[in-house]
Amino acid sequence: MAIDADALWILLNAVRERQPLVHNITNFVVMNTTANALLALGASPAMVHALDEVEDFVAISQALVVNIGTLYPEQIAACKLAAQRARAGGVPWILDPVGAGATPYRQAAASALTRLRPNVIRGNGSEILTLAQQARVGQGRGVDSLHDSEAAVEAARTLAAETGAVVAVTGAVDYVTDGAKMVEIHNGHPLMARVTGLGCSATAIIGAFLAVERDPLMATVAGLAVFGVAGEMAAEWAAGPGSLQVALLDALYALTQSDLAQRLKLDKE
Amino acid sequence: MAIDADALWILLNAVRERQPLVHNITNFVVMNTTANALLALGASPAMVHALDEVEDFVAISQALVVNIGTLYPEQIAACKLAAQRARAGGVPWILDPVGAGATPYRQAAASALTRLRPNVIRGNGSEILTLAQQARVGQGRGVDSLHDSEAAVEAARTLAAETGAVVAVTGAVDYVTDGAKMVEIHNGHPLMARVTGLGCSATAIIGAFLAVERDPLMATVAGLAVFGVAGEMAAEWAAGPGSLQVALLDALYALTQSDLAQRLKLDKE
Amino acid sequence: MAIDADALWILLNAVRERQPLVHNITNFVVMNTTANALLALGASPAMVHALDEVEDFVAISQALVVNIGTLYPEQIAACKLAAQRARAGGVPWILDPVGAGATPYRQAAASALTRLRPNVIRGNGSEILTLAQQARVGQGRGVDSLHDSEAAVEAARTLAAETGAVVAVTGAVDYVTDGAKMVEIHNGHPLMARVTGLGCSATAIIGAFLAVERDPLMATVAGLAVFGVAGEMAAEWAAGPGSLQVALLDALYALTQSDLAQRLKLDKE
Repeated sequence: MAIDADALWILLNAVRERQPLVHNITNFVVMNTTANALLALGASPAMVHALDEVEDFVAISQALVVNIGTLYPEQIAACKLAAQRARAGGVPWILDPVGAGATPYRQAAASALTRLRPNVIRGNGSEILTLAQQARVGQGRGVDSLHDSEAAVEAARTLAAETGAVVAVTGAVDYVTDGAKMVEIHNGHPLMARVTGLGCSATAIIGAFLAVERDPLMATVAGLAVFGVAGEMAAEWAAGPGSLQVALLDALYALTQSDLAQRLKLDKE
Repeated sequence: MAIDADALWILLNAVRERQPLVHNITNFVVMNTTANALLALGASPAMVHALDEVEDFVAISQALVVNIGTLYPEQIAACKLAAQRARAGGVPWILDPVGAGATPYRQAAASALTRLRPNVIRGNGSEILTLAQQARVGQGRGVDSLHDSEAAVEAARTLAAETGAVVAVTGAVDYVTDGAKMVEIHNGHPLMARVTGLGCSATAIIGAFLAVERDPLMATVAGLAVFGVAGEMAAEWAAGPGSLQVALLDALYALTQSDLAQRLKLDKE
Repeated sequence: MAIDADALWILLNAVRERQPLVHNITNFVVMNTTANALLALGASPAMVHALDEVEDFVAISQALVVNIGTLYPEQIAACKLAAQRARAGGVPWILDPVGAGATPYRQAAASALTRLRPNVIRGNGSEILTLAQQARVGQGRGVDSLHDSEAAVEAARTLAAETGAVVAVTGAVDYVTDGAKMVEIHNGHPLMARVTGLGCSATAIIGAFLAVERDPLMATVAGLAVFGVAGEMAAEWAAGPGSLQVALLDALYALTQSDLAQRLKLDKE
């Protein structure tokens, strides 16, 4: 199937109609933001991380989102358990390796989760370079990227080929690859980098599309494109990062077929 | 005392004047939202969940709110300790059994807390059906309801009669019962379901009214009516779920006697 | 160097240009709010609290912010470890003793952290009175202040002299002292007290200024003044606490030299 505005619109409608249950094990900074982004899109989010219930919860979910932003030992254990259960039960899952490379602890956690075969990995330039073992530990600026997304394009391709995951590296341009094909998304707005958790929200939105679309490349492009278009629309309305976040939720909720058709900017190799 | 707009206005003023300290043990998704809703209403919220201090904190609070949204073992223990201390000290407390029925772990926690005699229980249709043991485990859509509030009216009555708690089941219509009396609240707006944590915020708002009103039926109707009216006012202004959340806090803060008098829609049996 | 609008503007520009990495170990209520305030200002926030990585993370950060709002045993241990590493490595750090005095557990944690020599301590009147041992335990209204900031001015001076920290007590007027000098900041707006976590955000903003300015008195005045001016600008636009929070982030992002020059109200002893 061609990846174009029509195909993405069909997928967005599928999310809105089916309201898939998206299980999130995510960080404390963005739990609220992420849940609101998923609800505005039309999905049904749940944030569940107790070791005693993550397996049961994955089993009733249509997708799993794993994000290591504010990781701690019990949460890493819960992420692993949930990821294994997702793989065993055919529930698609996506990994967001927040700040991979900033500390050895964080890098070890990200690597261990990568080995549990996520269907998709989404990170910024520094995170993807780290996961592809092309960057040294400790060089990151915490959770923000030191590298343009463009600098990590080849790392993304390598990581995808090695892991079998679709890899997305996001930034001024978003790149999505399965190791062979490469899709560029030229939507979004620079002001989005001044709101916390929008990368994490993009990951969660991809999770919602994974729940309705089996092809992870298609689902990832759909998630990033819809999120980027909504961000652009929000930036036109916003006076700064506070109003951008509010307007982004409104735009995700209100996004129409013509918004998508008129604004979508994809480049395919 | 009659439950009408005049009575509710007196209670809202009591909250605004006395600024009761409301102790919340709640989930990580909604901590910020809930604290802001309580502050906008006029109460003084505190989010305190460490085992080492929950009992001391309940002792200086005027009401306790217990919410199991992102439960984990230590938090369940803290909830139990706080609930027992509240009962012993005459501090009214309300239980929000988020996602009860989604997993066995969650159902066990909700049932154990129910046995500690909350003054009020507020949930959506699926949660109240589960607690009244009229629904099977695992059939929920995570934390969103599969059932209209109307489908759980009889379950609410049963649960109230069995536990001695006032039970509120919220949705398109909110139902509040003490097992005998039943009050329906026809306020609110469908867009509210697209913002995370508004059910949890409604629970916290009821907590603030419990701090100033001894009759739990009256306090619960007051909380849900004020929250529903504020939500309606916000929905008239909002362009989507992002701006709804912002406007809801503004409306809680600004709500006047005539807003309440003109908009309140109660039905009493 | 004189503390005036020109000096503060230079520091604000330094934050915007250098985008310092600010490591936060903070409470779950305000993580999102605080991260957004730092991003809007121009800093690069990270919320990292795992025992296994806090020391590594402090080592790559330009400032550390420690806030005990929703403390629990592991977090207190992480705070201590991070504070010691900060002191050893010359990374400036600031303590926010949220709710100190509300419970013995909270007071013990605040005292223990105070002994680890923060460069700055910021609290409300009740918190600073408690830390200066001029108030009894348990008399607080949870996390909100029972005392005007003015009531804690002498306690602030004492605490600064005893600990070697710059002490800020915030409220209707903000007071900043190193034990000898005292600066008053008459900016801000009463509506700010109706939004959760703005005190915590002020602390984090001071953290960002500590990253670019070695004099902790100057950095603290800069942080509180910029935050107060942004709050005033936001209050002029806002219809209530919901829109105030949104507008505050927009104002932090957009604040100009003339905003600062026209609105700044400092009194120096």
